[in-house]
This record gives sequence, C-alpha cells and structure tokens, in this order.
Amino acid sequence: MKEVVTGIDIGGTNTVMGLVDRDGNILAEASLLTTSYPEVQGFVDAIAGAVSDMRKKAGDVNIRGIGIGAPNGNYYKGTIEQATNLVWRGIIPIADMIEKKTSVKVVLTNDANAAAMGEMIFGAAKGMKDFIVLTLGTGLGSGIVVNGQMVYGHTGFAGELGHMVIVPGGRACGCGSHGCLETYASATGLVRTVLLLLSEMREETPLRKVSPAELTSKMVAEAAAKGDPVALKAFDYTADKLALGIANSVIFSSPQAVFLFGGLVNAGELLFKPLREHINKYVMPWYRGRFEVLPSGIKEHNAAVLGAAALAWNEIL
Amino acid sequence: MKEVVTGIDIGGTNTVMGLVDRDGNILAEASLLTTSYPEVQGFVDAIAGAVSDMRKKAGDVNIRGIGIGAPNGNYYKGTIEQATNLVWRGIIPIADMIEKKTSVKVVLTNDANAAAMGEMIFGAAKGMKDFIVLTLGTGLGSGIVVNGQMVYGHTGFAGELGHMVIVPGGRACGCGSHGCLETYASATGLVRTVLLLLSEMREETPLRKVSPAELTSKMVAEAAAKGDPVALKAFDYTADKLALGIANSVIFSSPQAVFLFGGLVNAGELLFKPLREHINKYVMPWYRGRFEVLPSGIKEHNAAVLGAAALAWNEIL
Repeated sequence: MKEVVTGIDIGGTNTVMGLVDRDGNILAEASLLTTSYPEVQGFVDAIAGAVSDMRKKAGDVNIRGIGIGAPNGNYYKGTIEQATNLVWRGIIPIADMIEKKTSVKVVLTNDANAAAMGEMIFGAAKGMKDFIVLTLGTGLGSGIVVNGQMVYGHTGFAGELGHMVIVPGGRACGCGSHGCLETYASATGLVRTVLLLLSEMREETPLRKVSPAELTSKMVAEAAAKGDPVALKAFDYTADKLALGIANSVIFSSPQAVFLFGGLVNAGELLFKPLREHINKYVMPWYRGRFEVLPSGIKEHNAAVLGAAALAWNEIL
Repeated sequence: MKEVVTGIDIGGTNTVMGLVDRDGNILAEASLLTTSYPEVQGFVDAIAGAVSDMRKKAGDVNIRGIGIGAPNGNYYKGTIEQATNLVWRGIIPIADMIEKKTSVKVVLTNDANAAAMGEMIFGAAKGMKDFIVLTLGTGLGSGIVVNGQMVYGHTGFAGELGHMVIVPGGRACGCGSHGCLETYASATGLVRTVLLLLSEMREETPLRKVSPAELTSKMVAEAAAKGDPVALKAFDYTADKLALGIANSVIFSSPQAVFLFGGLVNAGELLFKPLREHINKYVMPWYRGRFEVLPSGIKEHNAAVLGAAALAWNEIL
C-alpha cells in the first residue's frame, strides 16, 4: 500500500487537489469550482467526495494526512479568517470540518506558506534551512523559513512581505495602507507602473492603445520582450522596488536563497537582470554574494497542490 | 554549590563580566580595558585570570558555561569577524581560545543578540516565543527571536535591522550603503537629524551654539525635554524613520513585542509618543494592536553581562 497525502489548494475561483507521494509524484487529481458552494458545509462535503474518488482512482493508497493552502489561512487554528476573495465570511474552521468529514488529520496554512513548503520538500530549497519564497501574482505573497521552520509568528500571520512599506505615502493598497511592496512588485503593480510611465514618458508604445482596465502584465512582458521602451522601463521600475524589499528581507533573516514564483517570473531576465543590479545597490555590502535570488524550482501548474501536500508531509515526518 | 555561568561583554573600550545565577543575580563582577591588549592571547589570559578571581570572590560556585557578547560575533563559529571597533584584525577564534584556557564551554554571539537573550531569560520577554530587541546606541543593533529561537540565518549574521534601507539613496552609512535605519534611528542619527533641521528651520535653539562634533543625543534629549522646537522635531523625525523600520519588521515575523533598549530610550515619551503614532500610520492595519512596542525590561547597567549570561544559560537548559 502506497503512502500518500492529499494536497488541497483553495482558491477564490477554483479548488484543486491531488494525492501526492513522498517524492512529489501526483497519483490522482481533482478540482472543484469554489464559487459553486455558497455554504461551507457543501464545500466540505464536495471535498470529501473528491478525495474519496481520487483514492479509488489511485488504487492501493493510504492517505496519511491532508494539507491545505488557503487565502488568509491560520496555521495555529486551522481557520480561514476574513478572506476577501472567498464567498464565506468571518472565521471558517475549515480544517476541523474537513477532518471530521474525512477522519484524516488536516493541517492548513496560507497559500504563500504552502508554496514555501513545496519549495523545501519538493523544489529548489531542498536541504536549505533558511530561505524565503515570494509569490508574484495579483498580489505579493511570502513564505519564510528560518532554521528549517516556517515562520508563523505570534499571530500565525507572519510573512506578509507584500505589505512591507517601500514608498512611505505611496500607492494605495488593498490592505488600507500606502506604498506596500505588492502595489509595485506584482502583476497589478506592473500595470500601475505602466500607467505612471505613460504619464511621464512621450515614447510611442502599443500599450497606449489598451484601456487601463484591460491592460495585463502579460501584455507588458510581451511588449518588453520586443524592446518597447515603456515596458522595459516598467520592468526596471518594478525590479527596483522588489530589490528594496528583498534587500530589507535578507538583512532580517539572512536566507541562503530568495525564490521568486508566479506569473511575473516567466519574464525571466527582463525581471532578473535589473533585479540583481538593484539588489546590489541596496543591500548591505557585506551580504553581497552571500545569498541567491532564484526562480522557483516547482512547475507552476503543480505548485499549489504540491505546496499543500508538502505541508502535510512536513507535519508527518 | 551554586550553579552559575559567566557572562562576558567585549566592547571596543571595556570588557565587563560577571558570574550570574539562573535568576539573573550577579554574584561577582570584573572588568578589563580591552584596548590594553594589542594581542588576543594576552586578552584571553586576562579574561581567564578575571574569571578565576570572580570564582574565588563568589565562594562555592560551579561555572557551567561562559557566554560572550561581542561586536561582529559569529554564533556558528565562535569567532569575532572583522570588527572595526576592536584592535584585533581579521577573524578571531575567541570562543575556542577562552574555552581552551578555562576548560569551560563557551558560546558567543553578537551584542544585540545577547541583549535579546537577556530579555528572554531575565527581562520583559520572559515566556515570549516571538519578539525583537532593537538596541539604539551609537548604531542600531537587533536581535530577533522566532519560535523561541534566536534567528542567526544561513550566515550567522541575520538580524542586521540597522541596515534596513529606509530612505533609498539617503544618508551615507558606515556599512557602505545609503539610507540605512541606523543613520536615522540611533544616537548619531538623532544628531545628524538635528543638523538637517538646523539647515531647514529658523527657530532659536541652544543647539546652534554647539559644534556638530560636540553635539550629543543627550543634549538633544535635554533640549527636547525643555520644549525646544528643533529638538522636538528631531525626535519626531527619528520616530518616523524608526516606525517605518518597526512596521516592516513586524510584518516579517509577527512578534508579540518589539523591545527598545539603549540611551535613546531614556528619552521616554519624547520618543515613544511619536513612535506609536508613526507606527500606526505605516503598519498594515490588520496588525494594529496585535503587537506592542515597549522599553526593555533589563537595567542598562547590567544588560551586557546579563545578556551574555543568558546566552550561556539558554544553551545549557
């Protein structure tokens, strides 16, 4: 009988899951439309059903645990708290509910922490005791590992590097503050930067022909790849702010590496080249060459499920 | 026979030490003039002699270990590395040398980490698993505890919050970078701020009558206590920069408390009142009220020795 865990990633739109062995092989997969379940209990029942189906599909397996990555997930309490992109309001004891329904031990954390766990157990951070994962998506999430342990802090919600204030009094952030890192270094931040640059620069660019509401980071990356001056400058500006956030994180926990994950990272050297330059500008000289900034070692397609599964394996081992 | 440890704080000018029991009582004290020993071996011999004298003085004690706080102390290796304010150049294996000479187990870290240990074992952080200590002296040192453990990081030199870049391209720092927190939030930073304000403001103040080379943070604090407008504004400016550093640290590790230690803290509400206001301005709203900013619970006079002793006790227990 093969030992596996279930990794579940709860997203605003989709929930994806899989049975994952200790080597990171996904033996069965399933997904649900999160928005189809206005009541949490209906969602929990559907999860249990999907897990049962996967178990049948995978054959002779023993499910040792369930790991969940969820927005605003509280590791200490197993709850999802005030998640603005989920339909369920308030504090949801989702881990207990799924544990009761499946009779399998459940552990939960937020999605960025799960990504860091995935990196540690299955990805490029294997064997590292001190590292940071930054997920550059719509916002900027982060998972921090210190001394081989996830940093949860006193509240359970440590590691909100997307809300490091990079520009005092700067861009309005969804969190209620101003100048947060994620308002600059994220897919939406990149688009905001293009709008700023369009206000300042006179260069011709196809980006002027797209409405701000429709402009995406992918369009900006495509334009940059063709040498568009506004798009290139937008990447440089983004890299500058991200570099400041990384430099200030490195002097906090002195990680061996900082891993970048998510859509923006696909831009490759368009992002990494200016990023390395700006990091060297900001970081305390002593730290230069004493850490690396690398792309994640986990394939984006599987990352959410592997991260949640890694959380479960880490708890068991 | 009473169980004690020896706490040793190596400073650029003086080295102070004491025998400390598990409750933080200092049973005997001694000190050396660090600068009197151009050769490390001579210094080590003098340390061993002083420990031996203290042991006689204290009577029936068993020295369980020696803890050392030192500038640029490397916990992993027990070395002092490239300390600019000590006479010994290069990498000094001071822990091994003292261990060989005294036949007692030695553990070493930098002075700010020792201060954090002192706070955890003997001070206001007793029972806390997640907290940060900032020492506001000539520079700004920091010790970070996550999950009950000191954060040393991959290099052993984590927790250099004094070199968080607060103002990109700002004040030149001794580390070679610009705009570091300690160029604003420290005794010397306060003095630099007074000079800036004297260039901008027209108000009468006795601070204009002191040469910049002679101006001290104590004079600024005394002027502020008397309502001097430039001195008061200097404290507000300092508090603003320190608040940004604290806000960005809190979202990293979500500590239960941030403790402030050192000369500047003696200014009391002159510093703490504007500090609280500016922190609330910067920190992600969710964190408001979820951490405290407090003065250290350790008396300044004993802090260095107690911190070093706490390091030893923590290693033994």
